[in-house]
Amino acid sequence: MVTRDSQRLARSVSEWLAQFEDALRARDIDRVVSLFGSECYWRDLVSFSWNIVTLEGREDVSAMLRFCLQSADPCRFYSVGHPVKSGEAIESWFSFETESGRGTGHVRLVDGKAWTLLTALDELKGFEEPLGERRVMGGTKHDRTRINRRDGRDTGTDGLEGNGTNRDPEVVIVGGGQGGIALAARLGHLGVPTVVVERNDRPGDSWRRRYKSLALHDPVWYDHFPYLQFPQSWPVYPSKDKIGDWLESYSRIMDIDYWCRSTARTARYDEETARWTLVVDRDGSEVTVHPRQLVFATGVSGKPNIPKFPGADLFQGQIQHSSQHSGPEGYEGKKVVVVGSNNSAHDICGALWEAGAEVTMVQRSPACVVRSASMRELALGPLYSERAVADGFDTRTADLTLASIPYRIMGGLQKPIYDAIRLQDAEYYRRLTESGFEVDFGEDESGLFMKYLRRGSGYYIDTGSSEMVADGRIGLAKGQVVEIARDAVILEDGTRLAADLIILATGYGSMNQGVADIIGQEMADRVGKVWGLGSGTAKDPGPWEGEERNMWKPTQQKGLWFHGGNLHQSRHYSLYLALQLKARYEGLSTPVYGLQPVFHRE
Amino acid sequence: MVTRDSQRLARSVSEWLAQFEDALRARDIDRVVSLFGSECYWRDLVSFSWNIVTLEGREDVSAMLRFCLQSADPCRFYSVGHPVKSGEAIESWFSFETESGRGTGHVRLVDGKAWTLLTALDELKGFEEPLGERRVMGGTKHDRTRINRRDGRDTGTDGLEGNGTNRDPEVVIVGGGQGGIALAARLGHLGVPTVVVERNDRPGDSWRRRYKSLALHDPVWYDHFPYLQFPQSWPVYPSKDKIGDWLESYSRIMDIDYWCRSTARTARYDEETARWTLVVDRDGSEVTVHPRQLVFATGVSGKPNIPKFPGADLFQGQIQHSSQHSGPEGYEGKKVVVVGSNNSAHDICGALWEAGAEVTMVQRSPACVVRSASMRELALGPLYSERAVADGFDTRTADLTLASIPYRIMGGLQKPIYDAIRLQDAEYYRRLTESGFEVDFGEDESGLFMKYLRRGSGYYIDTGSSEMVADGRIGLAKGQVVEIARDAVILEDGTRLAADLIILATGYGSMNQGVADIIGQEMADRVGKVWGLGSGTAKDPGPWEGEERNMWKPTQQKGLWFHGGNLHQSRHYSLYLALQLKARYEGLSTPVYGLQPVFHRE
Repeated sequence: MVTRDSQRLARSVSEWLAQFEDALRARDIDRVVSLFGSECYWRDLVSFSWNIVTLEGREDVSAMLRFCLQSADPCRFYSVGHPVKSGEAIESWFSFETESGRGTGHVRLVDGKAWTLLTALDELKGFEEPLGERRVMGGTKHDRTRINRRDGRDTGTDGLEGNGTNRDPEVVIVGGGQGGIALAARLGHLGVPTVVVERNDRPGDSWRRRYKSLALHDPVWYDHFPYLQFPQSWPVYPSKDKIGDWLESYSRIMDIDYWCRSTARTARYDEETARWTLVVDRDGSEVTVHPRQLVFATGVSGKPNIPKFPGADLFQGQIQHSSQHSGPEGYEGKKVVVVGSNNSAHDICGALWEAGAEVTMVQRSPACVVRSASMRELALGPLYSERAVADGFDTRTADLTLASIPYRIMGGLQKPIYDAIRLQDAEYYRRLTESGFEVDFGEDESGLFMKYLRRGSGYYIDTGSSEMVADGRIGLAKGQVVEIARDAVILEDGTRLAADLIILATGYGSMNQGVADIIGQEMADRVGKVWGLGSGTAKDPGPWEGEERNMWKPTQQKGLWFHGGNLHQSRHYSLYLALQLKARYEGLSTPVYGLQPVFHRE
Repeated sequence: MVTRDSQRLARSVSEWLAQFEDALRARDIDRVVSLFGSECYWRDLVSFSWNIVTLEGREDVSAMLRFCLQSADPCRFYSVGHPVKSGEAIESWFSFETESGRGTGHVRLVDGKAWTLLTALDELKGFEEPLGERRVMGGTKHDRTRINRRDGRDTGTDGLEGNGTNRDPEVVIVGGGQGGIALAARLGHLGVPTVVVERNDRPGDSWRRRYKSLALHDPVWYDHFPYLQFPQSWPVYPSKDKIGDWLESYSRIMDIDYWCRSTARTARYDEETARWTLVVDRDGSEVTVHPRQLVFATGVSGKPNIPKFPGADLFQGQIQHSSQHSGPEGYEGKKVVVVGSNNSAHDICGALWEAGAEVTMVQRSPACVVRSASMRELALGPLYSERAVADGFDTRTADLTLASIPYRIMGGLQKPIYDAIRLQDAEYYRRLTESGFEVDFGEDESGLFMKYLRRGSGYYIDTGSSEMVADGRIGLAKGQVVEIARDAVILEDGTRLAADLIILATGYGSMNQGVADIIGQEMADRVGKVWGLGSGTAKDPGPWEGEERNMWKPTQQKGLWFHGGNLHQSRHYSLYLALQLKARYEGLSTPVYGLQPVFHRE
């Protein structure tokens, strides 16, 4: 219904967009900047900056435009849909174009000035994906023109290993989990020759091989893949095996050139040819390829953090990092000490208790614990739920809405969600705290999601184990581990925890160091820490960066990229990384604004 | 926009529905019948009749209602969406309920009376599918409650073979192609324990093993599977290997209990226990199961028709039925005679010519040839195309729209489509006819789709081979084969066609005879011919039946069902068959109205 009020909102937005476009076209940067409020944020996903950046304040906006306004040549700003009022702000979607692409934007206007602005590249002109009306005609002939199509494949081959080495691929993705597969699917659609290198036997094994009780901790609406959504009948929290099978099926359906049982050994970059020399152990044979672009999608988590406890070598039982623990079988009646109190620690303790083990969790620092149902309903529900879908939040709209919130102000917007959760679940937190478990919501009380974005650790989305901690089924001990005895774990206060098995749920290091063996220590150090916003909170040292370090965007090493994150990020950001890679493949000019400096090595 | 005109249409429909419901509730059959025109059709898909029937005329309507009005207890008829005017008729969707289910209806009113009525069951009350808002919560525990879930599956098993024999399945589906798989997916969603028995090594092999140039002849929008649509990026005509891979992935994603390398040997029905004794050769071991329901989804085509030509045993080259021919490799420079002039014959001839063989097609009777693009644009486009999707014809709406047209009048409605095609492609038909190829559009000029529905043969959707016939690259000979010589095929007019290879693209028999080896000849004869409408045209002998014989509905043998058809039918009719099987599994009362008599054995 078109009311007077909605007409007024629509006019405000159209006027702002017209003035914005006008000033941009006139290359009048001062005039552009005057359209922003004194507190303002412009987040750009590859459309102006050929980078993923958030500009904070008018100075930053001005600096970016001085760098790229001429080359970006933005135009055709049109509002899309109906603007809505949200608090003081008027929110609206819009479309726009640049010299090389078409994009989607989102603006929040306060008092007629932009408070937040998002500009996100959707597609490159002339290189649109063959979707919907643009499908290829197919039949056998057309199929064969597809990049990555397994030509003339014989009946009986399993088809998953590709033909690969006839020519050098443009892109090699090391790591064939959800990140690598989503990115490879995007690149396949864009016609960029891509190979995925995966050490496991089959796509999905990275999930199948984890501990048995693992299921998604995020609800299904948040986890879709590009191009093909999970069926409407899938559970809200699919199990690890379902996800494993999905990855395998998806790789096949998307015709991904997937090298199984393959491990990247060394990668050296030749500045002159602008190509890598990548040596891969492919199922026992050494294969050398020369891609222009090398993407690591080996998990945001790098190598396992395995603390060196004195006495560990004399321990008479087993010590496993959580990544090595495959499940509770065989531990009935055994004493198990799990060091750590985040997601994996809880999942593993819960499954061990169910299997009849005597389990103790060692909490070394407070953790943000939130009931899975509360996360689903209060944190993710407005954007990712059956209700959200019914309200018109398809996955892409939800992703862009989330992307429209600058990280600087996201914590403040998250806090009320966790306030509401604490209020609703007060009794739950009371019982958990009384058991001795230390719960925190981050230094600024911004909650679980910000912990994930800042450090990728420090939380548990409770799927049932906290109840076991609260009622004592899972034993709880607190403090640092100082020593391991022949048959026990010794804590700093002298507590002795008898153990047949010790599981170190102690997390992972930074991704750049995880791949140092392949790219060399010098390059790993030069590229610097991966992940984190520079919030200055625990495990996310400053200075402030405003975007995830080194993720999905150019790094200090030409041709080197990092991709990954949870399923949501693997889906959404794979688009922007794929567009960056496609632009380079096609030889478009891609001047990068604001390449991040490096402050931390790990 | 709500105009006066659309208000008037809406009122007409609402009034008719109110009167219809009122008369039904009053059990006043005469009053119900008076709401139908003198020419009228009521097609019911399982909602009133527990059968798939089309009632023609008021007498038929009255007879069905006398049988089932009391037990169906229909109510809550509400119009859905906006009625539209189409010629003289007002068309509208509506929803309704019966004693046991909820349904979707469609009515065409002419002069205030029903001309056509469709009533289709959507779901059974209390047994709704776990879709969308009804998803199970999942996590590892919830997954284990799912029927067909592979409990505690170990890493490393291929997962496709199911656990199977712990208890007897309710349903065994013989044949794991698109039909069996779509039905199994539906039954899985409905919680009916189901096993699929497939002779090939892997799901999809029934496609992979066909001739190399095979691609779908119907466009992708028409071919979707239930629950999971092909990606937006798939070609309009996916190749056989893509479809093969899809079937394999789909089976896995849908957790179908799929027995590979398994052949049904014998099936005997025990009236007393109301169960089958089915003996399966499962990868070399004999397994006996006792399902209540046995579904054959072995392809609408039964056994290959292999005509016995005198002299065949002395032929010095190879003779293959089209189903055995895997592609043109190795026949470069060879003389190949292909007997037949329908889809397979054309595809095979085209591929052989491209591979350098000298090919002659033997046309024994006229064929309906239509350019693939014309089929796509003029025949299927209004319901199944990117444009249709944009116009709101999602797959289900398109399927129900097609289902709303009674077979009796479908030919008349199809004719103008083929008239338009002949006009548009006049030059094409002129050239083809001048080459000597005999084109027909059916005895009543109703075209290709009616030939498919009536006899499942007699046509070619031209993907390029007709051009080769027209210009002589594919040689053309006409008439019946009377003999095979040592090195040639001899036609009735004495023509001698030299041959190194003879391919018999001579079609398939009826499905009931195809399974006679398993169910016994006596039962096969009692059940009668499968497929065909009884139109009295060639290969579809009368009397008129009004629905596909024996397809997706009860047969003369309790517990015996036939499922299949093209991808569209496998998708759409699998719902109605699944609901019939679910109702029996749950012990609902399912009084069948109008069980078809048998007029033909094959």
